[in-house]
Amino acid sequence: MVLALLAATLAAASSVGAQEFQDLTTSATPLLLQSQGSFTVGGDIIVSDALGTGGSGHIAVNQMYVQYKVPPSSRVPVVMVHGADLSGKSYETTPDGRMGWDEYFVRKGHAVYLADQVSRARSGFDPTVFNDVRSGAVPPGTQPPISHFSNEHAWTVFRFGPTFGVPYPDEQFPVEAMDRFAKQVVPDLNAMLRSPNPTHKALSDLALSLKGAVLMGHSESGRAPLEAALINAGGIRGMIVMEPPGGCGAAHYTDEQIATLARLPILIVFGDHLSVAPRDWLGAFENCKDFMARVNAAKGNVKMLYPPDLGIHGNSHLIMQDKNNLQIADLILDWIDRNVGTKVTRF
Amino acid sequence: MVLALLAATLAAASSVGAQEFQDLTTSATPLLLQSQGSFTVGGDIIVSDALGTGGSGHIAVNQMYVQYKVPPSSRVPVVMVHGADLSGKSYETTPDGRMGWDEYFVRKGHAVYLADQVSRARSGFDPTVFNDVRSGAVPPGTQPPISHFSNEHAWTVFRFGPTFGVPYPDEQFPVEAMDRFAKQVVPDLNAMLRSPNPTHKALSDLALSLKGAVLMGHSESGRAPLEAALINAGGIRGMIVMEPPGGCGAAHYTDEQIATLARLPILIVFGDHLSVAPRDWLGAFENCKDFMARVNAAKGNVKMLYPPDLGIHGNSHLIMQDKNNLQIADLILDWIDRNVGTKVTRF
Repeated sequence: MVLALLAATLAAASSVGAQEFQDLTTSATPLLLQSQGSFTVGGDIIVSDALGTGGSGHIAVNQMYVQYKVPPSSRVPVVMVHGADLSGKSYETTPDGRMGWDEYFVRKGHAVYLADQVSRARSGFDPTVFNDVRSGAVPPGTQPPISHFSNEHAWTVFRFGPTFGVPYPDEQFPVEAMDRFAKQVVPDLNAMLRSPNPTHKALSDLALSLKGAVLMGHSESGRAPLEAALINAGGIRGMIVMEPPGGCGAAHYTDEQIATLARLPILIVFGDHLSVAPRDWLGAFENCKDFMARVNAAKGNVKMLYPPDLGIHGNSHLIMQDKNNLQIADLILDWIDRNVGTKVTRF
Repeated sequence: MVLALLAATLAAASSVGAQEFQDLTTSATPLLLQSQGSFTVGGDIIVSDALGTGGSGHIAVNQMYVQYKVPPSSRVPVVMVHGADLSGKSYETTPDGRMGWDEYFVRKGHAVYLADQVSRARSGFDPTVFNDVRSGAVPPGTQPPISHFSNEHAWTVFRFGPTFGVPYPDEQFPVEAMDRFAKQVVPDLNAMLRSPNPTHKALSDLALSLKGAVLMGHSESGRAPLEAALINAGGIRGMIVMEPPGGCGAAHYTDEQIATLARLPILIVFGDHLSVAPRDWLGAFENCKDFMARVNAAKGNVKMLYPPDLGIHGNSHLIMQDKNNLQIADLILDWIDRNVGTKVTRF
């Protein structure tokens, strides 16, 4: 279903640095968009006097950058949010050059809103404390740690394989593109954010603006759809919770919060190799099953997509980039149709 | 030519935070793409042991993130690079919600490649020195200053008006959207980059991979197309140099370098109010005119697009976001047709 793309222009010599180019593939069918672009959600205007060569005065912080693609007629919009040390790029072209979920969901008739978490990538971050540390105005420990996954850390934590360089026999992540995946990693400054994380309200506000959207969160933002719904569920039509590292908060939420979450369809997604990974993914999985039981006991509609139950093996933590990423997407799209609905808006 | 877009879904209540949403406009005509996605160009794999919670080991640095949109048949591809304290967002939807150049150039038949400069936004940056400062392993002065424009600084330097809050009478920048513009500003870490700036080679490599592209640089990256051509001009078909703050390097380049630059068409672009702005934009403009004279004396083809000469007044430094941004785009597109050519590749 994919064709070598742009063969005329992209058959680059291997001597140049843009080697990723050679492997780009896409559908043979053009993509029709009613509209596309970007905007920001939320944000605060503050005053800073430590802006490097940028002067001093008012700056914006805590905004969330969002890119959108809207097909001519759209089923329920889907908002996609990425995990730790990554950006919206997670859902775009995969490290080995295949179509990402952002485009695939649009081709399947859903407007897609692709976010960079607050304080990350194109959402920017407040540089004040770093400049104040540099000048000696505040002690070094005042600035937050910045997280950035090493290849070695990502390999095992993201379940590409049991030890660095060794994939699981049935591994679905395109491990041959590990260095290209490394080029998707961006510094994670979430440690400097106030609590609650402004991304949660931005997601809730975005869903309200859309007058109905499915929120999809992954890993670090896996529970962000739930948190957004607990701020204001008015715009949220469904929630997709993918591999939150600490689980789904089975014992964390109050009965009142569980009752709120029980009013909306929720899909939990986990990949394979949970029990053999060095991090406690199995514990997260079990916690999410407990969460599912608790919400469903409150007359909720929580389902689990665990591909091994369907005979699909080898999925990593980066399930949207795995070689069978579109097969997984089809399962999620089917869940949306059955649980959120198939209503179409024409523009 | 623009219609209120998505009226059915986007008529958001003013009580929500996604207020930018209400003002999004787009063409009434759908956009047809042969392909779209993202990739990275260049990058080095290094070892770091100061990655916060991201472990230690190998990481990628110095890569350049690029998004692409390719129409079914394309004139020469155009690579767009943004200025200081900004990201690729500069060329997307304007702060007041109008179509950006990235989409407009595609609608006019050009494949567009939209970059985030190396060490910025979705290209990421190396966090090692910041984590080493935080832990006390190195002194605070070891980490680079981070630049981030304040609204006050941007207002006068970018020529929105003579003093903060006061626009020029004929100002073209959508000053009513100043706070939304502020939400496009991201921290600029160029001070930590090695010399020469890796963005330059990435641009040269990207043009080679594309087997022909026009490079467009703005402000901080205004001279980046020239620098890319001096590394390897093999893939470059034309260069658009927009408002480099220090001028075009009239006295900086050697005769040999000037001879190289004279082999390719170059368009220099400046906006209005150069002589009354607090920064020396007039000096930059005069330097670029000297550069033009020097390259043209070497049998080059350098032209100047200075809208006041055409009776078009009030353009700011952020010319791609001004209210007449598509009028300026048409002038650039016409220059491409006349100087680079109109050859079309069908995919």
